[in-house]
Amino acid sequence: MTTVEHIIADLALAESGRHQIRLAEQEMPGLMALREEFGDSQPLAGARIAGSLHMTTQTAVLIETLTALGAQVRWASCNIFSTQDDAAAAVVVGPGTFSAPSGVPVFAVKGETIREYWQYTDRILTWDGHDGPTIILDDGGDATLLVHEGVKAEKAGHVPPPLEEEDPAYNIEVEGMRHVLRASLEQDPTRFTRMAAGIVGVSEETTTGVHRLDQMHARGELLFPAINVNDSVTKSKFDNRYGIRHSLPDGINRATDVLMGGKVAFVAGYGDVGKGAAEALRGQGARVIVSEVDPICALQAAMDGYEVARIEDVVDRADFFITTTGNKDIIRVEHMAAMKDKAIVGNVGHFDNEIDMAGLARSGAKHQPIKPQVDEWTFADGHSVIILSEGRLLNLGNATGHPSFVMSTSFANQVLAQIELWVNLEAYPLGVHRLPKVLDEKVARSHLDALGVRLTELTEDQADYLGLPQHGPFKPDHYRY
Amino acid sequence: MTTVEHIIADLALAESGRHQIRLAEQEMPGLMALREEFGDSQPLAGARIAGSLHMTTQTAVLIETLTALGAQVRWASCNIFSTQDDAAAAVVVGPGTFSAPSGVPVFAVKGETIREYWQYTDRILTWDGHDGPTIILDDGGDATLLVHEGVKAEKAGHVPPPLEEEDPAYNIEVEGMRHVLRASLEQDPTRFTRMAAGIVGVSEETTTGVHRLDQMHARGELLFPAINVNDSVTKSKFDNRYGIRHSLPDGINRATDVLMGGKVAFVAGYGDVGKGAAEALRGQGARVIVSEVDPICALQAAMDGYEVARIEDVVDRADFFITTTGNKDIIRVEHMAAMKDKAIVGNVGHFDNEIDMAGLARSGAKHQPIKPQVDEWTFADGHSVIILSEGRLLNLGNATGHPSFVMSTSFANQVLAQIELWVNLEAYPLGVHRLPKVLDEKVARSHLDALGVRLTELTEDQADYLGLPQHGPFKPDHYRY
Amino acid sequence: MTTVEHIIADLALAESGRHQIRLAEQEMPGLMALREEFGDSQPLAGARIAGSLHMTTQTAVLIETLTALGAQVRWASCNIFSTQDDAAAAVVVGPGTFSAPSGVPVFAVKGETIREYWQYTDRILTWDGHDGPTIILDDGGDATLLVHEGVKAEKAGHVPPPLEEEDPAYNIEVEGMRHVLRASLEQDPTRFTRMAAGIVGVSEETTTGVHRLDQMHARGELLFPAINVNDSVTKSKFDNRYGIRHSLPDGINRATDVLMGGKVAFVAGYGDVGKGAAEALRGQGARVIVSEVDPICALQAAMDGYEVARIEDVVDRADFFITTTGNKDIIRVEHMAAMKDKAIVGNVGHFDNEIDMAGLARSGAKHQPIKPQVDEWTFADGHSVIILSEGRLLNLGNATGHPSFVMSTSFANQVLAQIELWVNLEAYPLGVHRLPKVLDEKVARSHLDALGVRLTELTEDQADYLGLPQHGPFKPDHYRY
Amino acid sequence: MTTVEHIIADLALAESGRHQIRLAEQEMPGLMALREEFGDSQPLAGARIAGSLHMTTQTAVLIETLTALGAQVRWASCNIFSTQDDAAAAVVVGPGTFSAPSGVPVFAVKGETIREYWQYTDRILTWDGHDGPTIILDDGGDATLLVHEGVKAEKAGHVPPPLEEEDPAYNIEVEGMRHVLRASLEQDPTRFTRMAAGIVGVSEETTTGVHRLDQMHARGELLFPAINVNDSVTKSKFDNRYGIRHSLPDGINRATDVLMGGKVAFVAGYGDVGKGAAEALRGQGARVIVSEVDPICALQAAMDGYEVARIEDVVDRADFFITTTGNKDIIRVEHMAAMKDKAIVGNVGHFDNEIDMAGLARSGAKHQPIKPQVDEWTFADGHSVIILSEGRLLNLGNATGHPSFVMSTSFANQVLAQIELWVNLEAYPLGVHRLPKVLDEKVARSHLDALGVRLTELTEDQADYLGLPQHGPFKPDHYRY
Repeated sequence: MTTVEHIIADLALAESGRHQIRLAEQEMPGLMALREEFGDSQPLAGARIAGSLHMTTQTAVLIETLTALGAQVRWASCNIFSTQDDAAAAVVVGPGTFSAPSGVPVFAVKGETIREYWQYTDRILTWDGHDGPTIILDDGGDATLLVHEGVKAEKAGHVPPPLEEEDPAYNIEVEGMRHVLRASLEQDPTRFTRMAAGIVGVSEETTTGVHRLDQMHARGELLFPAINVNDSVTKSKFDNRYGIRHSLPDGINRATDVLMGGKVAFVAGYGDVGKGAAEALRGQGARVIVSEVDPICALQAAMDGYEVARIEDVVDRADFFITTTGNKDIIRVEHMAAMKDKAIVGNVGHFDNEIDMAGLARSGAKHQPIKPQVDEWTFADGHSVIILSEGRLLNLGNATGHPSFVMSTSFANQVLAQIELWVNLEAYPLGVHRLPKVLDEKVARSHLDALGVRLTELTEDQADYLGLPQHGPFKPDHYRY
Repeated sequence: MTTVEHIIADLALAESGRHQIRLAEQEMPGLMALREEFGDSQPLAGARIAGSLHMTTQTAVLIETLTALGAQVRWASCNIFSTQDDAAAAVVVGPGTFSAPSGVPVFAVKGETIREYWQYTDRILTWDGHDGPTIILDDGGDATLLVHEGVKAEKAGHVPPPLEEEDPAYNIEVEGMRHVLRASLEQDPTRFTRMAAGIVGVSEETTTGVHRLDQMHARGELLFPAINVNDSVTKSKFDNRYGIRHSLPDGINRATDVLMGGKVAFVAGYGDVGKGAAEALRGQGARVIVSEVDPICALQAAMDGYEVARIEDVVDRADFFITTTGNKDIIRVEHMAAMKDKAIVGNVGHFDNEIDMAGLARSGAKHQPIKPQVDEWTFADGHSVIILSEGRLLNLGNATGHPSFVMSTSFANQVLAQIELWVNLEAYPLGVHRLPKVLDEKVARSHLDALGVRLTELTEDQADYLGLPQHGPFKPDHYRY
Repeated sequence: MTTVEHIIADLALAESGRHQIRLAEQEMPGLMALREEFGDSQPLAGARIAGSLHMTTQTAVLIETLTALGAQVRWASCNIFSTQDDAAAAVVVGPGTFSAPSGVPVFAVKGETIREYWQYTDRILTWDGHDGPTIILDDGGDATLLVHEGVKAEKAGHVPPPLEEEDPAYNIEVEGMRHVLRASLEQDPTRFTRMAAGIVGVSEETTTGVHRLDQMHARGELLFPAINVNDSVTKSKFDNRYGIRHSLPDGINRATDVLMGGKVAFVAGYGDVGKGAAEALRGQGARVIVSEVDPICALQAAMDGYEVARIEDVVDRADFFITTTGNKDIIRVEHMAAMKDKAIVGNVGHFDNEIDMAGLARSGAKHQPIKPQVDEWTFADGHSVIILSEGRLLNLGNATGHPSFVMSTSFANQVLAQIELWVNLEAYPLGVHRLPKVLDEKVARSHLDALGVRLTELTEDQADYLGLPQHGPFKPDHYRY
Repeated sequence: MTTVEHIIADLALAESGRHQIRLAEQEMPGLMALREEFGDSQPLAGARIAGSLHMTTQTAVLIETLTALGAQVRWASCNIFSTQDDAAAAVVVGPGTFSAPSGVPVFAVKGETIREYWQYTDRILTWDGHDGPTIILDDGGDATLLVHEGVKAEKAGHVPPPLEEEDPAYNIEVEGMRHVLRASLEQDPTRFTRMAAGIVGVSEETTTGVHRLDQMHARGELLFPAINVNDSVTKSKFDNRYGIRHSLPDGINRATDVLMGGKVAFVAGYGDVGKGAAEALRGQGARVIVSEVDPICALQAAMDGYEVARIEDVVDRADFFITTTGNKDIIRVEHMAAMKDKAIVGNVGHFDNEIDMAGLARSGAKHQPIKPQVDEWTFADGHSVIILSEGRLLNLGNATGHPSFVMSTSFANQVLAQIELWVNLEAYPLGVHRLPKVLDEKVARSHLDALGVRLTELTEDQADYLGLPQHGPFKPDHYRY
């Protein structure tokens, strides 16, 4: 914990973070509009929110929006590398005075260990004078998982003993979590059970987290209602597509400075992320070749003017290879072995196994770091490939991820989900829910002014003609946008 | 009926239609693939299909696909203007020999009257030796309506007497339908009741028709299951968007020959049709301004780089005004009165009331036809506007509508829906259903070869990793593409 | 000549032409601005202009601009097929009253014979009470050629005798011209010599005409100064590029109704015409492959995101083949024999020999007309290609050519060239000249308002800093735009 | 000079530079092709080249190409900030061994003083055992200027005495140069005169340098022939346009991380740089508004689909302001005072006076650095603007300038110009020349393979038909591409 404390004492860091937060606020009109709308009514008064989500500048604006709406908040990051220490420090110090920290407790530091990670996650669930938080705000589902596993452990009365690293069943994440559970069980054998009873719900940011929640619910194990923020239109169709359109070329540029114009770029996948990637590369004058397994997305790619091919058929033609699939083994060693010399290979999909990094390490290719997050791997025949961010998300590893404006649409959904769970809980029985379309539209609406958009309003007569409420929602749930 | 008979005797027409059909087949790979796949197994053997859908060249390929799969078919158009007489004649004559017409009975002629229209609709429901068809293929729902109203009339034992045109309740469509019902009731007072009992279901092409079906079902009046073809991804996201991208500039060009490049084009609505319209106009070098009532679509338009404004704020800046909304009164007389001289105004949305043509006629503006489907209306101050297709769909009125390839995706869904109703009926209880995603993907798949697309295949291992069937379907139902 | 007279008596034709002219005026702001600027000062007063240029609606606006500036005008078309009879009739009748034709004598009718063509060209050089015109406005150079050949014939004292069609040296164009010269020499053996002496210059529209002038001048035979209008920026960079961007997809659509989106389009040549063609096809969602012989243009195409390949390497992949080169034998029979079934082949370059139509006719491929200007040629293996406009310019043959706005930039250059020759002749000694950049900029300037462009003005201080005149010209002559 | 020596002793720097050079070689196919073609024949053998051009990684590849062709080279940077020390060190150490520096003497260090700058320039003109270099390779013309001023000073026999900084005539650049001249005159009063006599010519990279050369030649002062590399097509139409397309969004991203999509971007100027800037911003989903003083460029911008307006009319609508003009006072304090809060302002044109930074400093706006090269200036009303790179070239200041591939086209022209001056001097009499088109085409040709371009070749018959050499050059000199 000392690292965290060290950081929060660093006022220079906090000051730099405060600058970044101020600039980001300008670019997060959705969150600022929610402060404006709900600042007086304090809908989150009384709520204790445990947040687990990348501790960045944008998240700082989210956190301070939650507190501005009346909530008490504790925060951890959902990834050991993604914390921006200056943002963390600024949140701890708070928006008021630097001399007397009055902000939100943050348990996150860039480069924390896995063991620390689970300890920090435990810390956000620990509230003096209370059994725990009342709502969880989750990204990937680790905080939710810890509560559920805690309840299970308390029911079972024990936690499996630690494994040695050599043990084939050893999983560093599982060990980190069990370490925390073991200590909790020892100290207070009903803590998680009481805590779960006091939690009204969770709002989840990601596909992965939603997938976990769906599975828990299917198994009948879900302990409280969940809101799936990921599938709001203003999340999935904005963050995924327009975020990548921005951050993919940014990452490539910062990593390599190599011209994209006139080159051939291979994009694996034409979902929302792939659509944004292809658009960005074309916008830089590259010729994009798409691969797809889904015939509908493949047909879309073709109709949008892209060549659609298999990687093995074009592997010797492309200069850039970008994976966007969420699947594994998209780019394999045999592909890299057949690429042009100095082909650039990166991932903006999900996990680092989209590119077979493990296979590459085993392949005998010679590894030469070029600069942080940029590595050259040279094959026996002398040709090399340039791997960005070791196969992890290059837009985060080589650049700074999605810009604030795009995160504002995602995070406004998070805030609305938190309000729904706190003041409108009866609408969300045990299960996994999407936000009602009217809130999705509200999020969109709050971002229009900043872009100079003037919305047309339906007349009463027109609304009657269409059989729609005059002020929305305007579309059936299955509408695809 | 003499007009129809006159046409089918015209072998020159039929020959020209046959040429067009042959060229269209090349561009409708989805339908041709279904002929290939199901030609031997004849899944529609025994089915009697009553089709009501624009009688064009593309529809001819659809009809001949249905017969190639074993069905017996009778056809009418769903619009009094949309029939292409040469295609109709060719379908009647059939693909075999011209001397002995062996094709499908078609009851449709360009410019038929409303009364004829309902008589023709009645004719497709009349099958010698049977109570009626076994399946309906509908566009807009008129054939389905006639059956439902027939059953009601037979229950009631009478049809309301005809109204005079002067009567304020007079509706020419309703009168046309009642005229037919009255004759039927007189001749055979249980005909529609027996017919409905023999109909296994209907597949519906359009939003409007689906809306009617939903309402019937909500009222408990629906007599047989319905499949909503409109909301297949390969229909709504292809026909609507890519069809308009093609046919909007085509219509403007044929109507006016006016340069789009460098001009300002106002597009009302940013749904799928609006997206296609905006893309087409931008692709010609126009600067596009979009209007929207839905904040999500408005935000999409902005993120796609378009100005989003209200019509009243830009009415004096635009050179083209295109409506795509499905709503009414989008462009009103006060707007047209304020436009630049010779502004071009057209609709690709739905009904002609998107542009207030009735108001324009009452406004005192002077009407001057320029050429068929192109009219100039001059206001008192001397400026004029150019109205395309009298406010009706300009891509049909001034050009030839969507190209065959796009219709192939829509119509392949229709054929699959017909097969589902005929051989897999138990999956479709009374109600309004969408086609299963696996069929949507099948439709997409059948159009890939023609575009040179080579699809990637999931390995078993990858499919397991994703928890998906190896050959699809690949996405959850709420996926938005 | 009777055909022409027949036309001009047809008031319905004239009325239709007048409508078209009125609408075109709206789209030709450059010409209208010149009427506005020079209507009072009448700079062309006293000029007798012999014009030889496609007699279309746009040309009618040009002609009436010349007369509005004080000129007397006589007109012929420069192509036997390109006359729009209604426009011709309207020009003859004149803008005033229909009962008393008061317009400009026009000698042109759609489908005139070659012999008539040369007689009509002779007629525009024949001015009652004068030796001939004072200025020529030429397109392709035939009027200029006739004068030069006339002078030569008068010097020689004879014209070669007519050849029989069977004679290998027979050239129908040359025979047509000699027929006219022979008659003139007989009637007045010094007519062309006196005429040439009275001509102050010629302004030439096209690359081909400029090439002829350059050659005449190189041989020392040029009789009067010439202005090369073709190479004004506002001609070559606008007409060629933006005109084709408009009229190429228009021609393809009207000819075939085939979807371009998702298809592969091969464009031969990436000059200004090729650039416009590629942009238009991409704007419709096609994937464009370019071929080039010039490495600079090839590199531009690549940097603009197009695949650059040879036709033989992609001939079996493309759905559309468009030639834009000005060269011959671009698409040869061996290519067409290897294309996909029903590939569409057309030319927007120059002459019909870009596609080897003669070779195709000799190849044994079976010819089947589909509709006017659309022909199917079927090879022995059963696959066919669709040829547009028999290999001639498809944007003219299948659509209506460049739109008025684009022609307005070209024709404003023509009018300014005529004024320069008439009032500023000393600036143009014997030779072939381009218009000064200040006039090129003037043409551009006169088209800005219509597009809503507001130009920024240099301050005096800024102009001094740049060492430029405050109001232009702004660029050195070699600037490439 | 110690700084320079310090650097070259830093082997870690040199090693890092060598890595960068190796990667850049891959992206500079034009230079590598020249090594391949001329490596054996050594056309630059005997040449002593004095180079003054930004000492970057790309320049390192240029330098090592010159030596590979036989030249001896000495190098300085043409800008006190642009040196990349690692590249400089690597060039000094040479491609061979690190222990015994065997490379090219480089006199440049990032952040050198103005006085050092002129001393370094003097050093590249100083060759042991010779009167000076035989050729100059210049960027901006300072090396050439120094020689010309040296000759003048030697003629005059004196250099004006140094001025005090307070003197209104004081110019730090002029003082730096005179300091060097004074020392030279003292030591060797005919040094520059002898040196100039031995220089066969100069090749110049930039518009500014060419402008100086044109003026010298107009005044009759030019001492040796000059080749204008700037106006090769493969320089001005590639470096300017495609370079900025790449490096503008890169600079904005690294500086601000602010989303461009959906925002309004104002671009001053639509020359080649402006065209590239507008394309890049549109490619990121921004809506671009262009300003222009030249009506031809303004019309191009409109035809390319951009709004064209004056800054004062849109200053409160734009989120980004980018200058590309080469002019001064484009964005003035009154504009910045009227911008939206946190508008981002940057320059990619030329000098920092495109944005009135001096006026801003005087305006009373409060300056707050955000991070290096990113500054916030807050006006009295509370709104602020973000200035990138203090108004200097943001693509260099906030990112890394043009990518290697684009510089390869520029630098290949430089190498060819050096060869022309050394082996083909008789073709270049005293004056300022452009490279012959055949060399421009050669440069383009050498970049095609890397982009997968396969060039079509004219047949002899086609070349005859066009009247062109079969292998180029293909276009007249005035062709605009």
